[in-house]
Amino acid sequence: MPDPIVIALDGMGGDRAPDIVLRGAALAGERYPEARFLIHGDPERMERGLAGLKGFGDRVELHPAEKVIADDAKPSSALRGGEGSSMWNAVQKVRDGRADGVVSAGNTGALMAVSKFLLRTPPGVGRPAICSIMPTLRAEIAMLDLGANIECDGENLFQFAVMGAAFASAVLGRRPTVGLLNVGQEELKGGTALRDAAARLRAVADPSFDFSGFIEGDDITGGAVDVVVTDGFTGNVALKALEGSARLYGAALRRAVKSSFGGMAGFWLARRALNKVRDRFDPRRYNGAVFVGLNGVVVKAHGGSDAFAFANAIGFAVDMARHGFLDDVRSAFERMAPPVAATAS
Amino acid sequence: MPDPIVIALDGMGGDRAPDIVLRGAALAGERYPEARFLIHGDPERMERGLAGLKGFGDRVELHPAEKVIADDAKPSSALRGGEGSSMWNAVQKVRDGRADGVVSAGNTGALMAVSKFLLRTPPGVGRPAICSIMPTLRAEIAMLDLGANIECDGENLFQFAVMGAAFASAVLGRRPTVGLLNVGQEELKGGTALRDAAARLRAVADPSFDFSGFIEGDDITGGAVDVVVTDGFTGNVALKALEGSARLYGAALRRAVKSSFGGMAGFWLARRALNKVRDRFDPRRYNGAVFVGLNGVVVKAHGGSDAFAFANAIGFAVDMARHGFLDDVRSAFERMAPPVAATAS
Repeated sequence: MPDPIVIALDGMGGDRAPDIVLRGAALAGERYPEARFLIHGDPERMERGLAGLKGFGDRVELHPAEKVIADDAKPSSALRGGEGSSMWNAVQKVRDGRADGVVSAGNTGALMAVSKFLLRTPPGVGRPAICSIMPTLRAEIAMLDLGANIECDGENLFQFAVMGAAFASAVLGRRPTVGLLNVGQEELKGGTALRDAAARLRAVADPSFDFSGFIEGDDITGGAVDVVVTDGFTGNVALKALEGSARLYGAALRRAVKSSFGGMAGFWLARRALNKVRDRFDPRRYNGAVFVGLNGVVVKAHGGSDAFAFANAIGFAVDMARHGFLDDVRSAFERMAPPVAATAS
Repeated sequence: MPDPIVIALDGMGGDRAPDIVLRGAALAGERYPEARFLIHGDPERMERGLAGLKGFGDRVELHPAEKVIADDAKPSSALRGGEGSSMWNAVQKVRDGRADGVVSAGNTGALMAVSKFLLRTPPGVGRPAICSIMPTLRAEIAMLDLGANIECDGENLFQFAVMGAAFASAVLGRRPTVGLLNVGQEELKGGTALRDAAARLRAVADPSFDFSGFIEGDDITGGAVDVVVTDGFTGNVALKALEGSARLYGAALRRAVKSSFGGMAGFWLARRALNKVRDRFDPRRYNGAVFVGLNGVVVKAHGGSDAFAFANAIGFAVDMARHGFLDDVRSAFERMAPPVAATAS
């Protein structure tokens, strides 16, 4: 039996808290026998939810928290008034060394603000970024930043590349290739931040990843690299464009199938094959926006998560804790600090 | 019979020129009885191609051009050495008032540079942009800029909105709604350029379009607005991400269908319904990147166009000429000039 991994949970975050948090934790507990959970929130409601989950109670500690940070609270007000809330207390468990990671399906901006405040960034890291995995024509890949930083300079993008590579190693389990997202035409190519980041990445030959240079938008789902690096504005737009396009094709297929007898009969015959496709692209499988660049593992689950989706978000936290993500980031920045300083000067 | 519309064609641009240019023009000629074509290129090869297209020769003038701008030529070298080439001479026909629009499947950067040099921007327009249409859950929509301008200020984005609206009116045939592409979370919202553009668009209540405010990445294929406005970097990445995702789902479906007898039998039964979906999203239907913001209608067809795709690119040029796109842009900027100046001061 491996060492226990302790995950702190915001029991009150998300549309269907605390139930999906508890059921998600129970599901993750089946997959990860070494996982233990510290769940923060309304004790009565959590006790009630836990009563229905047989054999899981001994893996869980319930920590009462009176307050809940509202879904529409601004990050600044979460910082001012959030102390003692289920989210705050869960993040604090990581800061106090009592948990290896924290998962919340609550307010994204609040979670980022509270995590930055309580956990701070490790030496060498300017800003945290939001990272996630997604399906491609080849294997799954990681992409960041997905929305934490609207404007980025070359140093930011360089750091995202290093942290994204550590994330990919921990979660995808391979030594990754890293690409900078750019546009194609020769004389139109990206701004100074991209050129600067590329120069830094070329200068640093680190054993933890390979820099593949610039990639374009269609290389994301083409699976051209294991880690796609971009600023938070572009990354957020691209991620949501991809989500929207999945809905577009799904809706078009459903409509077509229902429009004729041949369509319906064909769908019925092909249902097993089509269900495999649906399962492969099930957004719940890719649930979990990981905040990289903090002294702690923080995962944001989608607010609309069900238990399956929430368990997958917990899976990111467990994988990152188990594979030493934080140590990997720290040692990568220690190794790279001198050449980067030399490049920048 | 409506007045003739004359389209100048770069007979030598694209992977399979001049054949697909000639066959594309013949196909467009069937759809648009009022269209006439001035085709520029190698006279011998064009004569030979034309010989196979019966009944089309009287709609065409062949204009010999010795030179061809290479696919990998830089825009600067296209400007220096491009005079007398098939592309240059075709654009010149628009400048000289002898054609209502020009279509080329040649080098994008070269076409933009030559078009800017020969046609210039109309009064009030700072920079041309690249615009195209795409399928959504609802109707087709327009999006710009798709790659001409990496960095944009509020004034640029405002102008793209005005020109995109005129394009949507001409090609989609409705009074459009316009949205600015942004990211979602409240305190992370876009930079100064986006806020400035939104303020300008709110200040100008023009009868030619409705400003719907900010939209997000998934609203593109959601069809939330008729015109999506963004900078050329974000637009290029989003467009290519969407193209890549179409390939991802197509490949996953094909693989699933082939993996089992049920899949193959089901596909055969549902083939008519599925072919309708394929046809609806056929990228050849959306072929044609339109350069807006020039004193002339310029359409870039994909380099890999076949005749059907090239005919669709010609369709954009005919629609824009027929519906007075250039006059619409000019009069919109005349109407809007005073309030915009007031906002900016």
